[in-house]
Amino acid sequence: MSGPHPAVAAVRSAVRRALADLPADTTVLAACSGGADSLALSGALAFEAPRAGRTAGGVTVDHGLQEGSAARAGEVADVLRGLGLDPVLVRAVEVGGPGGPEAAARRARYTALDGAVEAHAPAVVLLGHTLDDQAETVLLGLARGSGARSLAGMAPRNGHLLRPLLGLDRSTVRRACAEMGLRAWEDPHNLDPRFARSRVRHEALPALEKALGPGIAEALARTAAMLRADADTLDRLADDLLAEATPETGTATATGTGAETGADTGTGPVLAVDPLAAAPASLRTRVLRRAALAAGCPASALTARHVRELDRLVTEWRGQSHIDLPGGVRCRRVARRLRFGA
Amino acid sequence: MSGPHPAVAAVRSAVRRALADLPADTTVLAACSGGADSLALSGALAFEAPRAGRTAGGVTVDHGLQEGSAARAGEVADVLRGLGLDPVLVRAVEVGGPGGPEAAARRARYTALDGAVEAHAPAVVLLGHTLDDQAETVLLGLARGSGARSLAGMAPRNGHLLRPLLGLDRSTVRRACAEMGLRAWEDPHNLDPRFARSRVRHEALPALEKALGPGIAEALARTAAMLRADADTLDRLADDLLAEATPETGTATATGTGAETGADTGTGPVLAVDPLAAAPASLRTRVLRRAALAAGCPASALTARHVRELDRLVTEWRGQSHIDLPGGVRCRRVARRLRFGA
Repeated sequence: MSGPHPAVAAVRSAVRRALADLPADTTVLAACSGGADSLALSGALAFEAPRAGRTAGGVTVDHGLQEGSAARAGEVADVLRGLGLDPVLVRAVEVGGPGGPEAAARRARYTALDGAVEAHAPAVVLLGHTLDDQAETVLLGLARGSGARSLAGMAPRNGHLLRPLLGLDRSTVRRACAEMGLRAWEDPHNLDPRFARSRVRHEALPALEKALGPGIAEALARTAAMLRADADTLDRLADDLLAEATPETGTATATGTGAETGADTGTGPVLAVDPLAAAPASLRTRVLRRAALAAGCPASALTARHVRELDRLVTEWRGQSHIDLPGGVRCRRVARRLRFGA
Repeated sequence: MSGPHPAVAAVRSAVRRALADLPADTTVLAACSGGADSLALSGALAFEAPRAGRTAGGVTVDHGLQEGSAARAGEVADVLRGLGLDPVLVRAVEVGGPGGPEAAARRARYTALDGAVEAHAPAVVLLGHTLDDQAETVLLGLARGSGARSLAGMAPRNGHLLRPLLGLDRSTVRRACAEMGLRAWEDPHNLDPRFARSRVRHEALPALEKALGPGIAEALARTAAMLRADADTLDRLADDLLAEATPETGTATATGTGAETGADTGTGPVLAVDPLAAAPASLRTRVLRRAALAAGCPASALTARHVRELDRLVTEWRGQSHIDLPGGVRCRRVARRLRFGA
């Protein structure tokens, strides 16, 4: 008797490792679009969960964006039940709100998954993202040009969302789906060049691979993991710097005169200039960015250029009184303090 | 009377800012290949230097890789002299040694520029790299997949090498060259698809721009600057961690028993496990990588995977005695120490 196909074994093993880290009473739900990646994930979960003595179910989201999407969601739910998953949930969502259609659909999907987790708490959701999805995410982040966090890709685990297949390439996962005898549905959006991810997948990554050699997707995924670790470290250090530079908590009496402290009554954050000036640029800019966001700047409008301007109030101050930021936020420099307000 | 063309003004202004930061007695040399970027740089330096009361010269490198390269270098030197630069140096180099032909040529070129700086000390060399060169460098670094430092691109200043044009796009610099009336020579290597940089320039970047929208070169350059700042900060913190984890310097008596300290006699670095285990992953892996390099691992062979294995000796140790690294280096874990040796 031969064992499972190596691709099937790889997907099952990845799911098994993810299950091993979870408390015994956690319900594990596979998020399944009906595409090959999430079907393979669902099949592997249905195989592994009973062997680990766990409750495993599935959830599929009906985005309502295509004709017959409700019927499709029902079919996917039938497949999940056929695999032996229970409970199986269908969540219909309404896609809309700010940003492009991809962002709106993603937002609606994650809200639906959050709901499924709450309904079956304690629960986690497994997502079928592969190494190739990670590489695409890194390239999409590159286009934003907003530093380490935007290149860090998707987290292997973020709260109750787990991505056990991030280390496997798409061809392996698709092969596993076929070897499990599951018939996948290809979302036409994945082939639609109006969507940035589709263009990255079908045009940009192949061109990069041609220019730079094979293995580029793996290199991008590796980069994401390293930059994620870097960004985590730097964010933690920025927490420390923010605490040190916030006069109200901590060192107010040490860094400010009474008169200065008395003037610290504004609508937004106040930062002491001296600890910022003494810190490395990469921490200073993180703290300044956070303060601007806390003051009400919309994240989508706050660019690296704005943060650089803020930074000049600290490092190249030549008497300028303030700078204006998106969202009607103003940052003034007064008495060795940066004061954010309307 | 009209002023200079905006492209010319932009290049001159970038050079002027670079000169402003230098001590008055520094000789400034423009490195010039005869290509449009470095010719525009040379023209701008020849214009700005006398106005700043500075000595400015030029240097061109004959790589000896193409028929008639010596004659070409002579022609470039004539152009530089015609601009009023003095001294003008021609440095012939021999390209060879390990790595690909691009790496070998780069190594020979930088050695020649170092020599020029020494001959005219105190001196600096200006290089004509543009924002587009930076974007290409970031993409080439992505292919290596080795983290922040490989994505940090070229430094605006690295010792006596300055890159004043990193903030300007290539089209501006080329336009400036034409407007200065200088005739550029296009290095055929720049168009040769056998070279990775040429493929990145002519295939990968246009494909990325098509997929992700215009401004991708600027986003990549901005990313490089942010990741450079991050990498500088993390490297500095890794210095601290390395000092803390090295038993001989600093805390030997505090962290080791006499017997353990007595056993610290090997051929390579010794690291205490406890400070490493307590540190964030991004600092730990930097320290482990440095120790492996110090022990003799060739940088070109030491991959992220090796460093991850080393890291498991710290964070997931289950009694394994050692791991083997490239270059015949072995790392053993003994008595809460990592010992690197042959």
